[in-house]
Parts: sequence; C-alpha cells; structure tokens
Amino acid sequence: MTKEDLQMVGFEIVAYAGDARSSLLTLLREVRAGNFENVEAGLASADENLKLAHNAQTKILAEEAKGEDLDVGFIFIHGQDHLMTTLLLRELIQDFIELYRKDR
Amino acid sequence: MTKEDLQMVGFEIVAYAGDARSSLLTLLREVRAGNFENVEAGLASADENLKLAHNAQTKILAEEAKGEDLDVGFIFIHGQDHLMTTLLLRELIQDFIELYRKDR
Amino acid sequence: MTKEDLQMVGFEIVAYAGDARSSLLTLLREVRAGNFENVEAGLASADENLKLAHNAQTKILAEEAKGEDLDVGFIFIHGQDHLMTTLLLRELIQDFIELYRKDR
Repeated sequence: MTKEDLQMVGFEIVAYAGDARSSLLTLLREVRAGNFENVEAGLASADENLKLAHNAQTKILAEEAKGEDLDVGFIFIHGQDHLMTTLLLRELIQDFIELYRKDR
Repeated sequence: MTKEDLQMVGFEIVAYAGDARSSLLTLLREVRAGNFENVEAGLASADENLKLAHNAQTKILAEEAKGEDLDVGFIFIHGQDHLMTTLLLRELIQDFIELYRKDR
Repeated sequence: MTKEDLQMVGFEIVAYAGDARSSLLTLLREVRAGNFENVEAGLASADENLKLAHNAQTKILAEEAKGEDLDVGFIFIHGQDHLMTTLLLRELIQDFIELYRKDR
C-alpha cells in the first residue's frame, strides 16, 4: 500500500467522519432547542457514516499489524482524529438527548 | 517544509490548543459550581486560541494536499490530537452551560 | 528507539486507554440509568489505566523533544487518539454524573 493509497483512505475517513460529525452536531443543536423529531434519523445517518469510516480504519490497522510498513501522512492522521473524536461525540450525544428530554 | 519546521508548527498547535483547553475546563468547573459570570469571556478566549491553532493546521493540510511530502513526527501528531479533542470540547461545553443553567 | 519499539508502546497505549474508555462508558451507562453505586470505583479504575497510558506517552514525547527521530506508525497514532479522546471523556463524565444526580 503506497503513501498515495493511504492518503486516499485518509480523505475517505475525513469525508465519512465529517458527515457523521455534521449530522450529530445538527442533532445536538435541535435537541438543545427542544426538538426531538429527528433523533432517530440523525443517529442512523451518523452510524452509517461511522461504520464506513471505521471499516476503512480497520483495514489499515490490519495491514500494519501483519507487518506492512505504512508511510503515514498528515491527511491520514487528520482522518483518524476526525473519526475518533466523532466516535466519542456519538457516545456522549445519547446523554445530552436524555438530559434535555428530562428537562422538557 | 522540513521535519523541524513541522515540529515547530506542532509545538505551536499544542500551545494554542492547550491554552484553549485550559480556558474551557476552567469554565466548565465554574458553571458546574453554578457560576456563570465568566462564560462569555472564557469562550471568547478559547475561540481566539482555537482560531490560531486551526490556522496552523490548515496551512499544513494545504501543503500536503498540493503534493508536498511531509515527514510527520510525534509532537505534530500530539498537536493534532490536542486541537481536535479541544474543538469537540468547545462544541459540547455549550450544552453543559445550557443544562447547568436550566438546573439552577 | 526502533519502529518496533514505538509500535509496542502504541499497543500498550491502545490497551490501557481502551480499558479506561470501557470503564468510563460502562459507568456512563449506569449513571444514565440512575445507578450511582460504582462511580468511585469506576473513576479510580479509569484513572489508574489513564496514568499508565499517559506515562508511556510522556516517555515518547521526551525522546522526540531531545532530538530523537521517531518513525511513527499507524498503531502508535491510534494509541494517541485513544488516549486523548479518553482523557476528554474523563473530564466530561464528571458533568454527566453531576447532571444525572441533580435530575434524580
């Protein structure tokens, strides 16, 4: 796997994780305003994109674990950061939904 | 752009993102204790530092996207992590402020 | 420090930070359900693992800062992401515990 291939996977992860992040932050703004209508659809859309990003990440992790020497660039690292912070947001949004629901 | 230049940008991002993170965590502790006095000033200070860190990141992203081969080191990666987790904290702190305000 | 050594530290950080993350997310699910029994034990276990992961990270940071040229691979980067997002989760879980407690 060349540096260019890795970079392409990096862009892919940035795109998928970025879309998931946008869905989740839009949803967060809605529940903050007391609108719970799109909770299920917003979470489902984010989960779909996170699955695609996660699949790409797992492929790379497996390559390195079996000994392949990967030349990692900035965009790949940026994709990783995007994915991992958005996975955390995905965990925490449930609590914000729950807490805003209780406060209605 | 040499590895040393990249490392300097890494230190810069760690510093700016670290300052933003400190402001936000201090603010979080204050609103947790029911003190909402410094909300605006705390957010403004964090946003200023996040803008500076973000600008540095964007410059690097642009260099790699136009084909420059960057030799990324640990401190640069650490800066990235700092920035991306602090940007997430910046998003979420609004909800904590909101929820603590409702609970007063 | 060879690329293999760095990779081993990467695996170590993934393991410690992953354990801390699991403890914290289990705890979050419990307090969401109104069960505050394991708060202290859960936080203590997470803190212990985060300290171990943080020590490994600091060692590497010091090596690069004194001029050693580290050949960073994907698993190391993944460890870093795991650690930094889990440190953020550790900060924020206090607020979720607090807010769920007030809501009882």
